[in-house]
Amino acid sequence: MQLGMIGLGRMGANMVRRLLKQGHECVVFDVNTEAVNTLSAEGAIGADSLDDLVAKLSPARAVWIMLPAAVVDSTLEQLTPLLQADDIVIDGGNSYYKDDIVRARRLEQRRLRYMDVGTSGGVWGLERGYCLMIGGDHSAYQQLKPIFSSLAPGLGDIERTPGHAEQPSSAEQGFLYCGVAGAGHFVKMVHNGIEYGMMAAYAEGLNLLKHANVGQQAQSLDAETTPLRDAAEFQYEIPVAEVAEVWRRGSVVSSWLLDLTAKALHNDQELTHFSGQVSDSGEGRWTAIAAIEAGVPAQILSTAVFNRFMSRGEDDYANKLLSAMRFEFGGHHEKPDK
Amino acid sequence: MQLGMIGLGRMGANMVRRLLKQGHECVVFDVNTEAVNTLSAEGAIGADSLDDLVAKLSPARAVWIMLPAAVVDSTLEQLTPLLQADDIVIDGGNSYYKDDIVRARRLEQRRLRYMDVGTSGGVWGLERGYCLMIGGDHSAYQQLKPIFSSLAPGLGDIERTPGHAEQPSSAEQGFLYCGVAGAGHFVKMVHNGIEYGMMAAYAEGLNLLKHANVGQQAQSLDAETTPLRDAAEFQYEIPVAEVAEVWRRGSVVSSWLLDLTAKALHNDQELTHFSGQVSDSGEGRWTAIAAIEAGVPAQILSTAVFNRFMSRGEDDYANKLLSAMRFEFGGHHEKPDK
Amino acid sequence: MQLGMIGLGRMGANMVRRLLKQGHECVVFDVNTEAVNTLSAEGAIGADSLDDLVAKLSPARAVWIMLPAAVVDSTLEQLTPLLQADDIVIDGGNSYYKDDIVRARRLEQRRLRYMDVGTSGGVWGLERGYCLMIGGDHSAYQQLKPIFSSLAPGLGDIERTPGHAEQPSSAEQGFLYCGVAGAGHFVKMVHNGIEYGMMAAYAEGLNLLKHANVGQQAQSLDAETTPLRDAAEFQYEIPVAEVAEVWRRGSVVSSWLLDLTAKALHNDQELTHFSGQVSDSGEGRWTAIAAIEAGVPAQILSTAVFNRFMSRGEDDYANKLLSAMRFEFGGHHEKPDK
Amino acid sequence: MQLGMIGLGRMGANMVRRLLKQGHECVVFDVNTEAVNTLSAEGAIGADSLDDLVAKLSPARAVWIMLPAAVVDSTLEQLTPLLQADDIVIDGGNSYYKDDIVRARRLEQRRLRYMDVGTSGGVWGLERGYCLMIGGDHSAYQQLKPIFSSLAPGLGDIERTPGHAEQPSSAEQGFLYCGVAGAGHFVKMVHNGIEYGMMAAYAEGLNLLKHANVGQQAQSLDAETTPLRDAAEFQYEIPVAEVAEVWRRGSVVSSWLLDLTAKALHNDQELTHFSGQVSDSGEGRWTAIAAIEAGVPAQILSTAVFNRFMSRGEDDYANKLLSAMRFEFGGHHEKPDK
Repeated sequence: MQLGMIGLGRMGANMVRRLLKQGHECVVFDVNTEAVNTLSAEGAIGADSLDDLVAKLSPARAVWIMLPAAVVDSTLEQLTPLLQADDIVIDGGNSYYKDDIVRARRLEQRRLRYMDVGTSGGVWGLERGYCLMIGGDHSAYQQLKPIFSSLAPGLGDIERTPGHAEQPSSAEQGFLYCGVAGAGHFVKMVHNGIEYGMMAAYAEGLNLLKHANVGQQAQSLDAETTPLRDAAEFQYEIPVAEVAEVWRRGSVVSSWLLDLTAKALHNDQELTHFSGQVSDSGEGRWTAIAAIEAGVPAQILSTAVFNRFMSRGEDDYANKLLSAMRFEFGGHHEKPDK
Repeated sequence: MQLGMIGLGRMGANMVRRLLKQGHECVVFDVNTEAVNTLSAEGAIGADSLDDLVAKLSPARAVWIMLPAAVVDSTLEQLTPLLQADDIVIDGGNSYYKDDIVRARRLEQRRLRYMDVGTSGGVWGLERGYCLMIGGDHSAYQQLKPIFSSLAPGLGDIERTPGHAEQPSSAEQGFLYCGVAGAGHFVKMVHNGIEYGMMAAYAEGLNLLKHANVGQQAQSLDAETTPLRDAAEFQYEIPVAEVAEVWRRGSVVSSWLLDLTAKALHNDQELTHFSGQVSDSGEGRWTAIAAIEAGVPAQILSTAVFNRFMSRGEDDYANKLLSAMRFEFGGHHEKPDK
Repeated sequence: MQLGMIGLGRMGANMVRRLLKQGHECVVFDVNTEAVNTLSAEGAIGADSLDDLVAKLSPARAVWIMLPAAVVDSTLEQLTPLLQADDIVIDGGNSYYKDDIVRARRLEQRRLRYMDVGTSGGVWGLERGYCLMIGGDHSAYQQLKPIFSSLAPGLGDIERTPGHAEQPSSAEQGFLYCGVAGAGHFVKMVHNGIEYGMMAAYAEGLNLLKHANVGQQAQSLDAETTPLRDAAEFQYEIPVAEVAEVWRRGSVVSSWLLDLTAKALHNDQELTHFSGQVSDSGEGRWTAIAAIEAGVPAQILSTAVFNRFMSRGEDDYANKLLSAMRFEFGGHHEKPDK
Repeated sequence: MQLGMIGLGRMGANMVRRLLKQGHECVVFDVNTEAVNTLSAEGAIGADSLDDLVAKLSPARAVWIMLPAAVVDSTLEQLTPLLQADDIVIDGGNSYYKDDIVRARRLEQRRLRYMDVGTSGGVWGLERGYCLMIGGDHSAYQQLKPIFSSLAPGLGDIERTPGHAEQPSSAEQGFLYCGVAGAGHFVKMVHNGIEYGMMAAYAEGLNLLKHANVGQQAQSLDAETTPLRDAAEFQYEIPVAEVAEVWRRGSVVSSWLLDLTAKALHNDQELTHFSGQVSDSGEGRWTAIAAIEAGVPAQILSTAVFNRFMSRGEDDYANKLLSAMRFEFGGHHEKPDK
């Protein structure tokens, strides 16, 4: 099957490679010509402009956009005038689902079919396949099933959930039509929200294990610090990297994120190359906002987001306020910087 | 190798079965004689009392206790006088690590060797093997390695973490010596704390997906309720069970807990057989307390615990207070019960 | 000074009364003619339509809208064509600050001056005065200072913050110009967010006091419940209403909300007339969303909002999911309903 | 009435001064002789040892201990052998209520009467009076009412809660008998837990106001950062100090903590003298632990405690773990340090 791909970064390029391997024809474009050349050498058909890309595709065209959320709208503005009725535009990046709703309406006026596809898999997708959460035009979904099927991991050797029909469902193969425009990105957004929560759960737990030796540290005995009630209860030197490893086998908390954590800790248990300023790239925030707007509780997911803000120092003024209040009512002085 | 087992509930009985299969000799006791008889029929040596169990074991004995945390101490009181110097007592249940510290000291005075083993695996351990987090006497650990090795899942077909030596470490085989008395239960406690956090992350996310159709519901238009800003943004009928299934393949949030969730949802997406009053059996609380005592942040894990309390209505009075305050300052009346 | 008031509910009517008492002239309108008649009898000039209201005001007119957020825009649509250049429109309700930004732009095109005024004081404002957080056109603010000054509580007998000039600032008198369009409602929104957090802090603390007797209750001894470690530590029958009262004097947590709480508890310590389904009327949500959008941590404020959602049962499906997972991995059965 | 006071720090010395002013006789001791001399000069009877203090008091003695929680037990060990049956020992510091339960039992064996008094008021107590939360021996409470009454603020000019009898209750005068041993410190502990929550609510809200201008800052446009959706919505330069001031008058969030906050901000809105490493002195942690032990939700109060741990960097390893996971699954690199 034929697909156009705009955006050949980490994700886009590997998706093209996966499609080429499975015999699909890919017409590719990126503002970075080097990226185009690399993929052409691997069997893709390079395009040197959006016009060229559109010209090299046969109608009804399918154009997959794999770009940062911030530049999708400007790309659509250039692209859509080049397309014809019934052509399909797929946003496979991390767009906000509210934007999908607007875009779908706009493209519908030109009789273009819009799809939003949340794509999980990161740098591992080429090898493992991509988990695809799909929203938008249903006829387009039907038409592009071969593409989705090739990108997705397939049934693989993962144990099947009991009760499923012999013929695997699309969900079992790793792709799912979730509903009307925005549904794909909505599900992907919540997926990432859950990812934030899971990551935070591991991080809190392993951080606690790392501190299980606090009883060995000298305790300051001033009025500003609560001493440990019983230092004998915190005398453990837990081998954190090995704990992550042992949990991979037979424990309730085993997961792919744990596999990756074990890998990182085996490499360097102290994680000295990281500063601990944790970025967030949107979906975590949007999940929290969606929960608030829908009136649904999401303490875990939103706290995971807020804690990332704190890792970047966005609570500095709040903390100064706390110290100032403590000084005002109790004459408490801050302890000097560590 | 020979092992005594006290407590033949769901966990203890299956552990004996796994050991028998691998050629170990198990002397077993339970206050429920039926449980003893069942296992005897499967190849274990039944004992009709603690005395009998001790008599049937050769020194240096190893006695594994697999009982509810609440009855471990009374069992130890009866058992320890029957044992000899160098005998080993293993608490494999879900004891509080602080109790291990006390018990180890007490048993040391009798020259008995105490071990605490956190055991994860639930009802699936017989088949998958148990993940073992081990603390206490190190010579006892060395002696009992064949037992731990048989209970643990082993290397299996899980992809190995890059960089490990050819000869698999014990952690890679699913058991780990974590440190002095209490270290095993400390690590198991934190494991369960993380489990609470992960479960809560999935629950919040899937609950949000379930509510993605709130825009379709009639909005009450009174002053006490915030209407949705844009109902068009919440018009999705997300197939929640299939979402759990699709995430099992290639997504960042894949895990064993997700496998189980997919199974439960495939069975009944509405989960009508559950009331939603969620129990907690100790380790989640203890993790939160340990974090507070150690001065380590654990917002995610403790919120997951508190939310379970809320699921059981322990926030009723707090909520009445909020309504009362709203009435006092703003004359706001509560909306009638749904 | 002359002011038009649209919306004579609890807040609007009392604000008119406060203005009349201080010698201002108020032209008032409401769709409920009874409300208009009541205030006319108290000295206001009644209007029977928006046209009538506009006609009875001399340019440059000042029209204060005191309506539910949901109907402000439709009212503005009817009102603005009736006004002239330089007239002032004030939204004194609980609008979302993002709406103010849009409205100000729209009204500016008609050369109307828009102001947004966050108004705190609830049912007590008539007596205590209203705390006014003001945004929008600065010339309009200058012009209407006499109105704001009359609505605000004034210096009163509250101890002055040290270091202030002899001549009290407007903030010391209870009204403050906060910045361009939306700034007033932004500050009011955050005010309410803080209010949510404070209310939740009191509610959690008093709820804990109420449960300080849990050690006296029969403990269930099944495996699904963690027993209290030491029931002797929870044997207190705390007189919660009197605690709220004693904290009013000399304690760090004294506040107006505490005064109201003490009043409610003195009336009925069990709060039997409340069901505990706590409404939320918007600002709490908006504060949480603003924090997320601005990348600023707000765990406390957002948790307070989410807990209200939980009080209304919006976590039911999440809790069922937790129970389902516990059943799947551990065979745990839910305890029967209380 | 006569009272012995051990511990003449900030709190103890001012309590003696307040008692002296109201005509009580105070015998005072501190390891710091200077502190004893100062108070002797102001009318107290100085003692140069515990023996001396006991000798200078007439039975049945009442000895108030006002010391850091960490040294109360060692002081009691020295003091109690010097006392006689029926003498009263009061711990007025910030002891853990669980310690009170143990101490009361121990002192009862010597027929001494133990009281625990939670004391709020900080550096302002001398002037405003102290809010007293009292637990322990009830006969001792009856006997010492004149002391409690003098220390407490009294009815003052605070508006009385409607419905109270003409004769003010003790709670209305600022002191309250809360129950058996530990009840006073339990209530004080929860009081401080609420204080943490309220402080955090103000800090979060004011921090958000401070960041209301983020739309003016240059946005980095890399893939690791979510840009603001609409920078126009965060263009406010909110005068934070004046906001704190205006909220003092007529707003729902007015409180003594807000008065102090307004004072600190008026002094220096940037709070440059504070580093933002916020100490915690015990009660906040204990409140969170008590809630967990009692099975009562306390998300707000515990998050407030955890956020203080974060202000001191105790989440560093957790954050490095998050960055490490992001690198492993997505190849995300951390942004450089600010």
